[in-house]
Amino acid sequence: MELGGPANQSLFIGFESRDSQNVYRLAPFYEASEAGAQDFEVEEHAQGPRNPFQYQGIAEGEISRDLQPNVDRWTFDELAVTLYAPTPALPQPDEPGFAEAILPAVTLEIEFDNRGCDRERTWVFGFGQYLPQALLRPIEGDMWRGVAHGQNLALATDSPGTWSGTWFTLDEIVDPTRGTNLDGMLGNCAAVAGSVPAGEVGRARLVMAFHRADTVTTGIAARYAYARHYPDLESVIEAGFRQFNQRKALALDLSPKLVEGFSEDQAWMAAQAIRSYYGSTELLEAVEDGRLLWVVNEGEYRMMNTLDLQADMVFWELERNPWVVQNVLDQFADRYSYRDELQDGEGLRPGGISFAHDMGVMNQFSPPGRSSYERAGLTGCFSYMTAEQLVNWTCVAWMLSVTPGYEDWLQRRRPILLECLESLIRRDLDERTGTIQFDSSRCEGGEEITTYDSLDASLGAARGSTYLAGKTWAAYLGLEQMLTQCGEPEKAAVAREQADRAVQTLLSSRLPDGTLPAVLDGRVDSKIIPVIEGLGFPLYADPGGDWRTRPGVPEWLQAMKHHLDLVLRPGVCLFEDGGWKLSSTSNNSWLSKIYLCQWIAREIFGRTDAQADKAHREWLERSGYFAWSDQMVSGEAKGSKYYPRGVTCSLWRRQTGFVMPTPVGGIMNG
Amino acid sequence: MELGGPANQSLFIGFESRDSQNVYRLAPFYEASEAGAQDFEVEEHAQGPRNPFQYQGIAEGEISRDLQPNVDRWTFDELAVTLYAPTPALPQPDEPGFAEAILPAVTLEIEFDNRGCDRERTWVFGFGQYLPQALLRPIEGDMWRGVAHGQNLALATDSPGTWSGTWFTLDEIVDPTRGTNLDGMLGNCAAVAGSVPAGEVGRARLVMAFHRADTVTTGIAARYAYARHYPDLESVIEAGFRQFNQRKALALDLSPKLVEGFSEDQAWMAAQAIRSYYGSTELLEAVEDGRLLWVVNEGEYRMMNTLDLQADMVFWELERNPWVVQNVLDQFADRYSYRDELQDGEGLRPGGISFAHDMGVMNQFSPPGRSSYERAGLTGCFSYMTAEQLVNWTCVAWMLSVTPGYEDWLQRRRPILLECLESLIRRDLDERTGTIQFDSSRCEGGEEITTYDSLDASLGAARGSTYLAGKTWAAYLGLEQMLTQCGEPEKAAVAREQADRAVQTLLSSRLPDGTLPAVLDGRVDSKIIPVIEGLGFPLYADPGGDWRTRPGVPEWLQAMKHHLDLVLRPGVCLFEDGGWKLSSTSNNSWLSKIYLCQWIAREIFGRTDAQADKAHREWLERSGYFAWSDQMVSGEAKGSKYYPRGVTCSLWRRQTGFVMPTPVGGIMNG
Repeated sequence: MELGGPANQSLFIGFESRDSQNVYRLAPFYEASEAGAQDFEVEEHAQGPRNPFQYQGIAEGEISRDLQPNVDRWTFDELAVTLYAPTPALPQPDEPGFAEAILPAVTLEIEFDNRGCDRERTWVFGFGQYLPQALLRPIEGDMWRGVAHGQNLALATDSPGTWSGTWFTLDEIVDPTRGTNLDGMLGNCAAVAGSVPAGEVGRARLVMAFHRADTVTTGIAARYAYARHYPDLESVIEAGFRQFNQRKALALDLSPKLVEGFSEDQAWMAAQAIRSYYGSTELLEAVEDGRLLWVVNEGEYRMMNTLDLQADMVFWELERNPWVVQNVLDQFADRYSYRDELQDGEGLRPGGISFAHDMGVMNQFSPPGRSSYERAGLTGCFSYMTAEQLVNWTCVAWMLSVTPGYEDWLQRRRPILLECLESLIRRDLDERTGTIQFDSSRCEGGEEITTYDSLDASLGAARGSTYLAGKTWAAYLGLEQMLTQCGEPEKAAVAREQADRAVQTLLSSRLPDGTLPAVLDGRVDSKIIPVIEGLGFPLYADPGGDWRTRPGVPEWLQAMKHHLDLVLRPGVCLFEDGGWKLSSTSNNSWLSKIYLCQWIAREIFGRTDAQADKAHREWLERSGYFAWSDQMVSGEAKGSKYYPRGVTCSLWRRQTGFVMPTPVGGIMNG
Repeated sequence: MELGGPANQSLFIGFESRDSQNVYRLAPFYEASEAGAQDFEVEEHAQGPRNPFQYQGIAEGEISRDLQPNVDRWTFDELAVTLYAPTPALPQPDEPGFAEAILPAVTLEIEFDNRGCDRERTWVFGFGQYLPQALLRPIEGDMWRGVAHGQNLALATDSPGTWSGTWFTLDEIVDPTRGTNLDGMLGNCAAVAGSVPAGEVGRARLVMAFHRADTVTTGIAARYAYARHYPDLESVIEAGFRQFNQRKALALDLSPKLVEGFSEDQAWMAAQAIRSYYGSTELLEAVEDGRLLWVVNEGEYRMMNTLDLQADMVFWELERNPWVVQNVLDQFADRYSYRDELQDGEGLRPGGISFAHDMGVMNQFSPPGRSSYERAGLTGCFSYMTAEQLVNWTCVAWMLSVTPGYEDWLQRRRPILLECLESLIRRDLDERTGTIQFDSSRCEGGEEITTYDSLDASLGAARGSTYLAGKTWAAYLGLEQMLTQCGEPEKAAVAREQADRAVQTLLSSRLPDGTLPAVLDGRVDSKIIPVIEGLGFPLYADPGGDWRTRPGVPEWLQAMKHHLDLVLRPGVCLFEDGGWKLSSTSNNSWLSKIYLCQWIAREIFGRTDAQADKAHREWLERSGYFAWSDQMVSGEAKGSKYYPRGVTCSLWRRQTGFVMPTPVGGIMNG
């Protein structure tokens, strides 16, 4: 529903107490104050007791949760609620299973264990108001009934012994003695309930349906692709029940596979990350021509298809549905690319192509060539990310190009690949360094930044960034490989030269203490982990390739290994709890980037760190309200909450067989 | 935008201070805390000052407001903002002026007096976030530009020397030194600004546009009728500027006419009432067949076309656009009528037709024959209003039937009029009283209530209510007149007999002290004003008719006059401030009903009360946040806030020339 965080409405999940039929025990997810019809009754006068029932919270100790990527089982004393939300690979629209995969529903099961009681008892599952308007109404089909919030949200059941209703308080819903009253439409409580005979275990199946039928975006007018298959809430609910068993089986099957080989801590983090990623995705269909638009919203910020996130999420997407990667690359190439000039002292020099930071925000597509985020005249957050996004688009294209079936796409995109090469070189000095040396004219006197926009100078600034230099090197490697495939050997050779120069530049930045600088000229006194980040792309695309043994590369790899040995220590790039600290001078550490660097450290440098995984899980648990979050300040989510980027951890499943090359002259320690 | 109250977002209305160009003076309608981009920047680091400007509230003493029904002029020291929102009669779709009349826009003028300053200065007019999503974006046309909130809200200007933008803070909007930054889409501030040269008075015209393009309702799927003429925000803005001068002229012309002859207090209340009424209206178009659906939402409660409000608002609507009255009557007849039985001790007896309390809530049309409000088994608020709504539909139909051009409609509705007569009689005792004596079977053992649902037993209960008996008498008079017109003289005679019986029943209820009881059997010890309320219908429809002189009526009129003389006293039906207290036993007094009774008291009993008008205005001023509100508890709005019902005051313009008949036997004081 395009929210930037948990919907935050009350959830009424509970059951009639064993001890008294006037007491309901509810999971502690509701606002007691929400009950009541005071707005209508402005003066007190006798109407008999308004609230025949009492509500008691279920204590934390009686609650347990088993969270898996596609199955989320909660146990509240005698009540268990299991949510099934399978995340199969998303087929293309003309492939079988497409409509099933995009069904906007969560299916769930209720189990209520009434074996310990000699009285028939009621369970309840419902929700409170989640928007300023309550918009509650009954909804029903031939075989099911439930409650809806306008055209957008519904909860329904098709199980025997159940009913549903809405009102100001739960009372009239859980006590169905007057059936005609269940169809009320006032109030802000909506629930499904059921009764279970004494001594039995009752089960019910529920569908939560989500829907928006009409145009949901501006800039490019688009609808949800699912609306073509499911025109309204009713059709989503029908399909939810029709597919119920199949969805459950799929979720149970997929869940362990998605975290195969993961430790318990890793698996738990991956489950949160996968759920948060899908919570941020949209598959849209342009009103104009029906073309599909894949959009990943940027978590709480809801910027659309932020390109620097795409460069980290690409690994997850390629393993499952590479066509969405192509879709996003094409959107950037066709609408969100631009050409700039470069700031050179007081003057300007020729620039080249790059890509906007994002495609808009909160379903508002930005104008062509412009992001919602970037602004001129700044040197920090909200400045342009021109070079970073040029490198990101190139690296993502490389990742796609090694995926079977995308050879034609690569050929088609040859012109833009040539432009990317040209643009990267233009951003280098005349005496080539293989790295980014100029800021875009779009900065209007400001300075470019990187994806680490809210970090300090160790990672935030683009020009001279060791992090960005490593990724620029990867981009040149990718251009070499892609242009070779495109039949452009001369241009490929130019790219290769630039990659070699980048390695030399990086090598020559080594500091006397054996560490690598955050900024190539050493003027920033920080130690950072992401000097290794650029390795991720060749490691994924070409782990056994000859790039490993090119001039300087073995030394560069050894230098990075040595750097990690020196900085992954308490007080430098480890927090006290053992969690990774991306920069020694910032308490802001990003989990997605840690996951990526952990994979590189494992595959290339043979380094694993279970204590770090434990710490990272604890960070997420501490901030669990927002599911998966990225920016952790001293182990607490302070930004990039409810974020899609954590699926980078899917790399942990990938074993590359990388073999470390031997340096020619041993390790130089400056 | 279907809100149940003021949108409550920040408004940024102000100007650069005379004394300093770094200081802005803003009207006190904003949250200072809204500014800032902290969510993105999770750690503090140097970026230069984020807020180059300071903001100062403009003090209350420097603000003045001239509120008229169609013109609302605010002066903030050197800045004046005038809103033009004309409310012409709404033509039918095939009549000229329809599209103009339903334009979903407010046009407004800015005047900034910079004659006292030797520096060019900037004014600003903007808004903050009004929904959980910010959704801000630039919007522009050939001759104008502005800012939009998604597909739903926009603010634009076509005046020279202006610009617009969005961001986290006003700073970058009011200071347009970097034009490229004005197109940002993040943040939650959106504004239009302009600069005025030293020594000049600057003027600008703005359009605020509102829009929802797609299906906005459930139950009956419907769109806004305006969407056919204005497919998007852009087209609303274009039309706003095209019609700007004409709308301004119309608003200036209509404003005084709508309150002609009113005292200043009355005119001010009427302006609030008229604005609140239109804020609650919707003209919809069914998706299925394009038929129009007129909907008045019930203020903060947003129930749709609540029939007991319709009976009070009909006078305003008939004077301007009677076709909407027919539209609502038809909706009730065709979809929201039902047939019941009647509770008679332990058994049931035959009932008849009535109408649902409402047609749903918050754009969710309820199922046929059912309201969102009514529930079984109650004796107070939320119980059924079966008899009340039967009487209301009948009386509203009567009011429409005396409007030229609705003779055919009446003929077409003859069957339902006959049913109404039958149903009313069924609700009487076998030995006829002309009043309501049974509760509907829909109550399932409960008791019917009246529109005064939140008042005590003096007005809340339907059976035996003197208030409802007076309106039932009116309904019989109306049925007599309508059935005569329909060529049903025998049925008309039956209605007349019932009316006569009602008068006798009412007359015989007089109490020894000369007052009239709130409940016919005298078992409730309250004094109420609305014993006279039913008079409104014959007074409007037939002020000189022979009903005035029928048996008992002159005595009944004298009895009511005497009652008013006795109860309109401090401590009985007057509050300490002189405001009217509908019931001596409740502090909850309803302005719409007071207005109606004030008109009846003036026209029939020659009673005016300027002190009461002054008190009522003060009540509204005290609760001014909600514009016009109905339920005033001891002079403060406690319910029915932001309510449409106040247009009943349009009756004050109507002089009926009613002449009080002389009773045959003088006044009986019991």
